[in-house]
Amino acid sequence: MKISSHFDGGRIAVVKADDVSDIQVNIDHDSNSEFRQWFHFRIQGIKNQDCVLTFLNASETSYVEGWKDYDVCASTDRQEWFRLPTEFDGKKLTVEFNTDTDDIYLAYFAPYSFERHLNLLAFAQQSDLCELHSLGETVDGRDFDMLIIEDQEVDLAEKLNVWMIARQHPGETMAEWFVEGFLESLLDQDNPSSRSLLQHCRFHVVPNMNPDGSYRGNLRTNAAGANLNREWQEPNMDRSPEVYLVREQMHARGVDLFLDIHGDEAIPYNFVAGCEGNPNYNERLKHLEDTFKAAWAAASPDFQDVYKYDDDEPGKGDLRIGTNYVGQTFNCLAYTVEMPFKDNHDLPDEHYGWSPERCKKFGEDVIIAINNTVPVIKNA
Amino acid sequence: MKISSHFDGGRIAVVKADDVSDIQVNIDHDSNSEFRQWFHFRIQGIKNQDCVLTFLNASETSYVEGWKDYDVCASTDRQEWFRLPTEFDGKKLTVEFNTDTDDIYLAYFAPYSFERHLNLLAFAQQSDLCELHSLGETVDGRDFDMLIIEDQEVDLAEKLNVWMIARQHPGETMAEWFVEGFLESLLDQDNPSSRSLLQHCRFHVVPNMNPDGSYRGNLRTNAAGANLNREWQEPNMDRSPEVYLVREQMHARGVDLFLDIHGDEAIPYNFVAGCEGNPNYNERLKHLEDTFKAAWAAASPDFQDVYKYDDDEPGKGDLRIGTNYVGQTFNCLAYTVEMPFKDNHDLPDEHYGWSPERCKKFGEDVIIAINNTVPVIKNA
Amino acid sequence: MKISSHFDGGRIAVVKADDVSDIQVNIDHDSNSEFRQWFHFRIQGIKNQDCVLTFLNASETSYVEGWKDYDVCASTDRQEWFRLPTEFDGKKLTVEFNTDTDDIYLAYFAPYSFERHLNLLAFAQQSDLCELHSLGETVDGRDFDMLIIEDQEVDLAEKLNVWMIARQHPGETMAEWFVEGFLESLLDQDNPSSRSLLQHCRFHVVPNMNPDGSYRGNLRTNAAGANLNREWQEPNMDRSPEVYLVREQMHARGVDLFLDIHGDEAIPYNFVAGCEGNPNYNERLKHLEDTFKAAWAAASPDFQDVYKYDDDEPGKGDLRIGTNYVGQTFNCLAYTVEMPFKDNHDLPDEHYGWSPERCKKFGEDVIIAINNTVPVIKNA
Amino acid sequence: MKISSHFDGGRIAVVKADDVSDIQVNIDHDSNSEFRQWFHFRIQGIKNQDCVLTFLNASETSYVEGWKDYDVCASTDRQEWFRLPTEFDGKKLTVEFNTDTDDIYLAYFAPYSFERHLNLLAFAQQSDLCELHSLGETVDGRDFDMLIIEDQEVDLAEKLNVWMIARQHPGETMAEWFVEGFLESLLDQDNPSSRSLLQHCRFHVVPNMNPDGSYRGNLRTNAAGANLNREWQEPNMDRSPEVYLVREQMHARGVDLFLDIHGDEAIPYNFVAGCEGNPNYNERLKHLEDTFKAAWAAASPDFQDVYKYDDDEPGKGDLRIGTNYVGQTFNCLAYTVEMPFKDNHDLPDEHYGWSPERCKKFGEDVIIAINNTVPVIKNA
Ligand SMILES: [Ca+2]
Ligand SMILES: [Ca+2]
Ligand SMILES: [Ca+2]
Ligand SMILES: [Ca+2]
Repeated sequence: MKISSHFDGGRIAVVKADDVSDIQVNIDHDSNSEFRQWFHFRIQGIKNQDCVLTFLNASETSYVEGWKDYDVCASTDRQEWFRLPTEFDGKKLTVEFNTDTDDIYLAYFAPYSFERHLNLLAFAQQSDLCELHSLGETVDGRDFDMLIIEDQEVDLAEKLNVWMIARQHPGETMAEWFVEGFLESLLDQDNPSSRSLLQHCRFHVVPNMNPDGSYRGNLRTNAAGANLNREWQEPNMDRSPEVYLVREQMHARGVDLFLDIHGDEAIPYNFVAGCEGNPNYNERLKHLEDTFKAAWAAASPDFQDVYKYDDDEPGKGDLRIGTNYVGQTFNCLAYTVEMPFKDNHDLPDEHYGWSPERCKKFGEDVIIAINNTVPVIKNA
Repeated sequence: MKISSHFDGGRIAVVKADDVSDIQVNIDHDSNSEFRQWFHFRIQGIKNQDCVLTFLNASETSYVEGWKDYDVCASTDRQEWFRLPTEFDGKKLTVEFNTDTDDIYLAYFAPYSFERHLNLLAFAQQSDLCELHSLGETVDGRDFDMLIIEDQEVDLAEKLNVWMIARQHPGETMAEWFVEGFLESLLDQDNPSSRSLLQHCRFHVVPNMNPDGSYRGNLRTNAAGANLNREWQEPNMDRSPEVYLVREQMHARGVDLFLDIHGDEAIPYNFVAGCEGNPNYNERLKHLEDTFKAAWAAASPDFQDVYKYDDDEPGKGDLRIGTNYVGQTFNCLAYTVEMPFKDNHDLPDEHYGWSPERCKKFGEDVIIAINNTVPVIKNA
Repeated sequence: MKISSHFDGGRIAVVKADDVSDIQVNIDHDSNSEFRQWFHFRIQGIKNQDCVLTFLNASETSYVEGWKDYDVCASTDRQEWFRLPTEFDGKKLTVEFNTDTDDIYLAYFAPYSFERHLNLLAFAQQSDLCELHSLGETVDGRDFDMLIIEDQEVDLAEKLNVWMIARQHPGETMAEWFVEGFLESLLDQDNPSSRSLLQHCRFHVVPNMNPDGSYRGNLRTNAAGANLNREWQEPNMDRSPEVYLVREQMHARGVDLFLDIHGDEAIPYNFVAGCEGNPNYNERLKHLEDTFKAAWAAASPDFQDVYKYDDDEPGKGDLRIGTNYVGQTFNCLAYTVEMPFKDNHDLPDEHYGWSPERCKKFGEDVIIAINNTVPVIKNA
Repeated sequence: MKISSHFDGGRIAVVKADDVSDIQVNIDHDSNSEFRQWFHFRIQGIKNQDCVLTFLNASETSYVEGWKDYDVCASTDRQEWFRLPTEFDGKKLTVEFNTDTDDIYLAYFAPYSFERHLNLLAFAQQSDLCELHSLGETVDGRDFDMLIIEDQEVDLAEKLNVWMIARQHPGETMAEWFVEGFLESLLDQDNPSSRSLLQHCRFHVVPNMNPDGSYRGNLRTNAAGANLNREWQEPNMDRSPEVYLVREQMHARGVDLFLDIHGDEAIPYNFVAGCEGNPNYNERLKHLEDTFKAAWAAASPDFQDVYKYDDDEPGKGDLRIGTNYVGQTFNCLAYTVEMPFKDNHDLPDEHYGWSPERCKKFGEDVIIAINNTVPVIKNA
């Protein structure tokens, strides 16, 4: 048997890989950073063998509560990602499996590669509705792109500027699956909510804020070791060009609605985190937040507003965070969207848990929510 | 050149077919009935020729207002149905076209064959959630089927019984396209609204109430010449077994929500027609109707409640009609769903008009509306 | 439980259908004819039950030897057709099965509907290489079509005229599956043998010689009760218009190579039957036959020349048969292609037997054989 | 506008990229090597603009004759690769284009990424016929894999060992497209040639001999700068572990037939290069070569034996080359397969040239050729 991770998004620290019944690994830290939670690796030569794999240092990772009720993601064909029954004893995470294939891939969540990312951009630009716009380059020198989606035939003095960004934290791959579903539906001319929205809005979508961290197999940081979602107040071109470049575009183009797509390690539900702690928070913004949350809950039972982060205290919001920064700066509705690494416990799926397919559907259904929020934004 | 219609759902009366620049046809009446509106035929041998085709008797059909702003549906590959620019001068309907293929099919709306119908049933029965149930036979002796969709693992004393039927009027093919979209989504385990609904409901779906009329190329009647949607009060096994058999099942199984899927010839919008004229109509039912309409409008901009039929006067509802009969008998929410033959003028699509793809999406989105109505039904 | 056959190609005579453990049927005769062998029916309401079905009159059908080593074809999704273990005791044919679906379809061979036939024509006409040509009408008034496939940019004084016809015997559905594979590959611009052939040949393809018999669920005859493959010497527009119309085109256009695609009930191999009994048979024709057979055997191990019909005695060929008539009349290479209802015993597949997929591949590989025969025809 | 190449297989040296009408680039050399011919890059921000791009140093690349009659490969969706009209003036290569998309990708030939490579392995291992076997690691530490394809139910004392390797020269991406077509067909149970072959043979397939060079965007060398196809006589684990590891397996398992898949820069035809220069070359080997070539020519008009490399003189074969080494060492039929970067001039395709689809079909058709050669190998 053999374990490898030298591929897009791969990362693990192998301790012992000579006995299928006692495979030992450590979860590795991000490049240039102490965060550690993401893993993605391939195990070879284990056909029809009872395997026991232990993540030795699970209790020393960044989000230990993430392992409670968590099941490891796995695939043998690299298309379908299912869950393996997994145990966390408070210290180690252990997964047992037996596959009738020679190899299996394990990951913290279904990976989303840079190749797939480039395919998504290339797919989107086929649409007359879509403009593919280069924002510049990442720390490692990768292309950094934004899609602008707009119906050019709609002549409107003032279109609302809607922004969606994803994968500030690169290991939160569910975020780009979400964007894939969102884009496929937004560009689908048979989708009435999309067609309705394009009568009023211009969309700016950054499907991957952190291509370097994604390729490197990081959970939270870019190539320079920066947690991008703490860089919004003072980004710079050395340490956080990805935030710098997007912020620059926002200031040039304006923002009326902002969604920043994430994954949460601990909470087994989908939820949003807003701007209640911002200095400028007020009744208008609260009304917009409530409208959007109600609209999304109506559109998708995968959304809820019960299990979520504690509210920030008034005025104590951390403005280094993208959502807070944008909400404050543009005085607009701004939300961090959080999806689970685990499952949605309201509608659990034992076999797949929270999955790429469900992320995509969730990203499709948010279009309905936005469409029902836009009239309120216009009047608010 | 040549015109033919000897195939599933084919129907036209050829007057003159020897000159592509002056093709003349009459719209034929239903078998054993005077209704006339449906057409579906194949024109052969017209490659790269400027064709002019006239429906001579358009002003003598059942729904003359149906031709205003109507564009003929066409296909050369029998998969993609697009619209041909069409003129109605108050008397004749004229369509001009030039195709780079030898043949073209024209139809009142994209056809839905009995083969596709059987494929839909066969697809559905692959799901663990679905039971395929024979209701009996049609007048012509065709299989007449119902799908029962239920999560057997949900143990609930009293599940709500939701019913959906389609194509009482067989030429309203959009109804079965709608059901196809509905079924594919309801059986999709990644659709949260479907999963949520199956926690509370048992679905009974009759995808085609009128397989004989469908095959024969009728607009409104079955093989015996009956307009099934006027047979609900006194159906019988000779003239309207299709209604008789479904009604029987309803009485045995109960009804909490009923949707009867139709197409409307004249109105270029999607809408519903309810039970306001029923003797038992009351505040509870009105509340359910309003809830459902609001929920659907929220889920889909293709639904609206402005352009629609005039309300029945109180107590004057025609109880021979399925929706009225079921609403009255089971004291439940019951709606006729109407889709356009033309287009949805709120979100017009010049190239496709109202199309199979949009029907399917509309049938998918109604799941959200039902899911948001069910709690109100339970509490009402 | 219930048995039905009122659909395209359906046919069975039900004797007893009230007990899954003792279902009894008779194989029905063709319309207006005594041939009896084809069956295609749907059994409903048998989920998870041990079914035993007996064809009572198997020993009284047209090809009793067809039941030896034969396994019934079945499908629950109408897409994938597999085999059910079947016993023939010399008198009755018995099949046992248990399916986890409510319904199952059984057939003598995987059906090929008129809808699929029309789809195939519509698919083919999308290609610039293909002209869709109406031949006229069948006895029942159905469209009767020919595809002419030619590279119009190849300017050649004298292209070879290759003809392929299929389903003279409508229950030999493998013939149209074969043609589907043939057409998809012939129109595939990435297939070098197809591109090479179109430098030299013009193809005339009649995918279904007998649409009426196909729809009616006949094994061998058309709507008038004629065995078309005995009508080639004196066809007439009343009894055998299908042969009359094709023969007419052949005389107008010429024939250099003729393939008539069939299925054989008894022999579990693929083989051809040629013109050795024709008055004009000679060394040139024998050389062409040998060339073609060797080329096909080289291209496909599914072809062989060991198990086949006995040769006709010299001069004793029945010229009422299409292959003999065409070979004699046009002094050309002409073959009847026979595929098994059972399996190819050289490469047996227990689960699928001879299948639509294998028919299609066989029809694809014949293109290689034709391509390697054409130079010899040109020089012979 | 902007040019980038920081992605799998990307490589170009930008000289001037500020004016779409005068874009200037140089073809870059391989990492750690002087070979230069491969390019793959993305041009952004050029929608609807008349672009002129010049490869300044075309006359200084490794295969200058490669630019004669060559057209650049391009894609806007990263799926379909078409050709752009290209001029070579003996010094510079110039391509003009105008795309209605924002971005376009240009490449020497349609790329084949490491992600797709891993997907191919993962696809193959789903088959019961296939074992996925780790060979070890590349210089850069990537997984290096072999597929063993064998019907375990065939119990044969001595199966023939067939080997296929591809992409020793990583920029010859057509080689892996060929292998993809080969594998899909070999694992297709409906393919009679594949089923026949698996009665006699065990296949060893290395789809990518040079994953590092592939990812790095090299034409000919691995990460250590080695031209692997000159390493077969004395490979070592530092400089050419990829050859070392495969050679080791060959010695352990034996070789009866060897195919090494390549692309040729200059010759616009498909052809093979064999072992006529080997010390051990003899009549038996010549007979095997002739048999194989004739079989392939019969199976595919894309194969020919007219335009090809000059024969080696007797005894002068370079045994550092894989084909020669294996042919000599195992005294077996061994061929280098060469496909064009340009087109097959026997069957030219102006729009696509030689393409991934045609590579795949070519790799499918070689199965027929092998199947017709195996009996001769067994008897030779
Ligand atoms: Ca996060
Ligand atoms: Ca109606
Ligand atoms: Ca026959
Ligand atoms: Ca080479």
